[in-house]
Amino acid sequence: MAIYDIRVDLKRGVSDAEGRNVAKALRLLGFDVSDVRVSKAYRIEFTSEDPDADVEVMCQRLLANPVIQDYSIERID
Amino acid sequence: MAIYDIRVDLKRGVSDAEGRNVAKALRLLGFDVSDVRVSKAYRIEFTSEDPDADVEVMCQRLLANPVIQDYSIERID
Repeated sequence: MAIYDIRVDLKRGVSDAEGRNVAKALRLLGFDVSDVRVSKAYRIEFTSEDPDADVEVMCQRLLANPVIQDYSIERID
Repeated sequence: MAIYDIRVDLKRGVSDAEGRNVAKALRLLGFDVSDVRVSKAYRIEFTSEDPDADVEVMCQRLLANPVIQDYSIERID
């Protein structure tokens, strides 16, 4: 079994509407924030022992949109 | 300026419908996954230098639902 953490972020320069709305809400609540970026994180368990190559392909094909998103992969177990 | 990474996960035992759907899609694509959990990550920049207490309150009031979600806070700058 292998466990991976995958994080999918919007690329720098791509407008993050959800982040802007969270920032606005936090400011309305009185917090002093200048910027918020929102990302998605996936924790994926594999039945196979060494799925390194699979993880890369999986990010490109399903989890991230390479036009506007970057992803980072970390094996945690 | 201070920058924080906040991660909001569903608590163990809470059903993760989005994760189940991602797992199903990955299996249909031929990947050998046994489980997927989806989380949200926020990168928040503050104008103040030491907003530690604010971050905790912010998670409780806006970013996480304490009934079904856990959050973790990490200062990165």
